Amino acid sequence: MPTANAYAATSSKSPLGPLAIQRRELGPRDVLIEIKYCGICHSDIHTVRGEWGETTYPIVPGHEIAGIVTGVGAQVKKHAVGDRVGVGCMVDSCGDCSSCRKGEEQHCLRGMVGTYGATGRDGQLTQGGYSTHIVVTEDFVLKIPEGISLDAAAPLLCAGITTYSPLRRWGAGPGKKVAIVGLGGLGHMGVKFARAMGAEVTVLSQSLSKKEDGLRLGAHHYYATKDPETFKKLAGTFDLIVNTVSAKIDLDAYLSLLALDGALVNVGAPAEPLSVNVFSLIMPRRVFTGSLIGGIPQTQEMLDFCAKHHIGADIEVIPASKINDAYERVLASDVRYRFVIDTSTLK
Amino acid sequence: MPTANAYAATSSKSPLGPLAIQRRELGPRDVLIEIKYCGICHSDIHTVRGEWGETTYPIVPGHEIAGIVTGVGAQVKKHAVGDRVGVGCMVDSCGDCSSCRKGEEQHCLRGMVGTYGATGRDGQLTQGGYSTHIVVTEDFVLKIPEGISLDAAAPLLCAGITTYSPLRRWGAGPGKKVAIVGLGGLGHMGVKFARAMGAEVTVLSQSLSKKEDGLRLGAHHYYATKDPETFKKLAGTFDLIVNTVSAKIDLDAYLSLLALDGALVNVGAPAEPLSVNVFSLIMPRRVFTGSLIGGIPQTQEMLDFCAKHHIGADIEVIPASKINDAYERVLASDVRYRFVIDTSTLK
Repeated sequence: MPTANAYAATSSKSPLGPLAIQRRELGPRDVLIEIKYCGICHSDIHTVRGEWGETTYPIVPGHEIAGIVTGVGAQVKKHAVGDRVGVGCMVDSCGDCSSCRKGEEQHCLRGMVGTYGATGRDGQLTQGGYSTHIVVTEDFVLKIPEGISLDAAAPLLCAGITTYSPLRRWGAGPGKKVAIVGLGGLGHMGVKFARAMGAEVTVLSQSLSKKEDGLRLGAHHYYATKDPETFKKLAGTFDLIVNTVSAKIDLDAYLSLLALDGALVNVGAPAEPLSVNVFSLIMPRRVFTGSLIGGIPQTQEMLDFCAKHHIGADIEVIPASKINDAYERVLASDVRYRFVIDTSTLK
Repeated sequence: MPTANAYAATSSKSPLGPLAIQRRELGPRDVLIEIKYCGICHSDIHTVRGEWGETTYPIVPGHEIAGIVTGVGAQVKKHAVGDRVGVGCMVDSCGDCSSCRKGEEQHCLRGMVGTYGATGRDGQLTQGGYSTHIVVTEDFVLKIPEGISLDAAAPLLCAGITTYSPLRRWGAGPGKKVAIVGLGGLGHMGVKFARAMGAEVTVLSQSLSKKEDGLRLGAHHYYATKDPETFKKLAGTFDLIVNTVSAKIDLDAYLSLLALDGALVNVGAPAEPLSVNVFSLIMPRRVFTGSLIGGIPQTQEMLDFCAKHHIGADIEVIPASKINDAYERVLASDVRYRFVIDTSTLK
C-alpha cells in the first residue's frame, strides 16, 4: 500500500503533527496523486477540534488538494500519469441516486464520502490532503487546466466552488448587481468570480479595513455593514447576495437589500437558528436559500472558468511546520486570503 | 358622479352595514363596472377590524370583484360596454418603475394602489367591491372569459392569483410533486391549479377532516400535519410546497419535506417572525420564499387558464345581510371554500 507523509491531529486538544499514513492499493478505477499543495479551510479546524460532532482520531484534514497523477488503475480513462489534478471536499458518492445522476454528488441521497473523516467504500476512514499522496476514484478527480498554478488552484476546490456555484445558479452576470458578504477565503473568491461573470460587484464587510483589497480583487463598491446608513442607502439594490459569513446575522436587514426576485444565499451556516419575518420575503418577493460546494461537473466548469479568466486564489504558502500557527491566524481572520501548505515540507 | 350602494364598516368594532358611496366621474381611460359578485377575503376582515395598521372609516372592503362593463371613457381600448370583467387587489400603480414595466404591478416601487383603503390617483380613498359599482382605470380591469360563471370567478381575483402565481413561478407541472398546506379559500384553489398543471398534488392539513373534499378537488394524497409520522414519511419528497396558512409554523420541519432544489413558498405571513436553521436550506439546497398575488398580465393568464381547464372557486353565495355572519364563519374556518356576496342584494 502506498505510504504518505501527513500532518494529523490525535485529539481535539492537541496540535497537528507529522504522521505516516497508508493509502489504499490502487483499484482498477483509482488514481494515485502526489499532492503538491493543500489549502487550509475553516472546516478543517472545526473538524480537528471536534466542533462538528464526533471526530475519529488521528485525523488528517485537508480538502483543497492540488497535485500530479503518479499512478492510475487499469480501467482509468479520465486521467493519466503526469496530469495536473485536484480533489475537493468529496472523494466518492453512490453514483446512482437522483442527485448523483444530476451531477450534484454533494447532495448524494446516500451521503457523499467526505475527503477526510468519513468512511470510504473500502470501509476505511478517509484521510485528507495535509499529506504527500492520496488515492481517489477517477470520477472525483478534477483536471486543473494549464494556466493556473497548482498552489493558487488548491483553494478553488472548496472556497472556489462554494462561491462559484451560487453565483451561477442565481444568474450573476452582466446587468446584475451582486453583493458578497465577508471578504475572507470564500468572499475574495466570490468577488473575483462575480466580477469575471460581468456583474456589478459590491463587498459588504463589517468595516472598511479591507476596502483597498476588495477593490483590487474586482469589487466596484465597498460598504461597511456596521454603519446603519449602509442598509438605508442600499435598500432594494441587489439581485443576489452571497453571504460567506457563518455568524448570526439580522436576516431581515440583509433581505431588505434585495430587489424584486433577488436571492440571499448563505454558504455558511451559523450554529444558532436565524429569525426571519416572512414579510421580508413577500414585500417584495425574495428568496432565502443556501448552497453547499458544488457537484463534480460544476467544479470542473469552475476550474475551466478560472483558467479562461486567469483566476486563482490569493494565497500565503506555508510549510507544514506552520500549520498550527496558521490555524490561529485563520481564527483571528489574519489571512489574505488562504493558507496553502507546501506538501514537499511534509517529511 | 356615479352613486353606488355599498356595505361599509364605520369603526373597527362595528358590524358592516349599508352605505351609499360616490364613485369618481369616468376619466378618459376609466371603466365603469356594475359589480355582480364580490368574494370575502380574510384580508377584508383584518382591514375592517384595524388589525393591519390604521384603517380610515368608513371603509368598503372587497377585492374579489366580478361584473359587467356599463360605461367606458373616451380613450378606453381594452374593454367595451357589456364585457364580463374582474378587478382584484389593485386598481392602479405608477406604470413606470422596473416592477410595473415587468408587469409585476403588485411590487410597484412607488406602491400599488389597493382596491380599498388606499389613496387613489384622484387623491380620494379607494373603496372596494362590497358595492354595486366601481370605476377603475382600464389597465387594472381583467377580462373574465366565457365559460366561468361570474360568481365562481370573483374569488379568482385574489385567492386564485395568490396560489396560481407561485405554482407557475416554481414550475408546478408534470413530473413535479407539489404540496399545498392548508385547505381553505386559497388552498382549495392551489389544489385545483396544481392538478390542472399536471403535478402530483398532496394536501397537508392539520387533520384529515377535509380529506374527502381534498381528493375531490384534485389532490392525489392527503396527510395530517398533526401526525408526526407525516414528516418522517414525506421527508425529502416535494419539489414545491405552497403554504397558505398564516399561522406560525415549524419552518425546519416543512423545509425537511423538500427535495433538492425544492421551494417552500409562503403566501401568507404570520405576524411573528419564524425561526430557521440555515442547515435546512443547505443540506440539501432548498429555497424559502414568499409570494404576493400576481401582476396584471399573470392574473389575466390565470383567468384564461381557468376557462381552459373549467376551473372556478367553490363558493357559497350570500346576500349582503349575511356579511357579518360570514365574517364569523371565516374566522371559524367554517366555509367551503369562499363566501361570495350577491351584490344585487345591496339595496
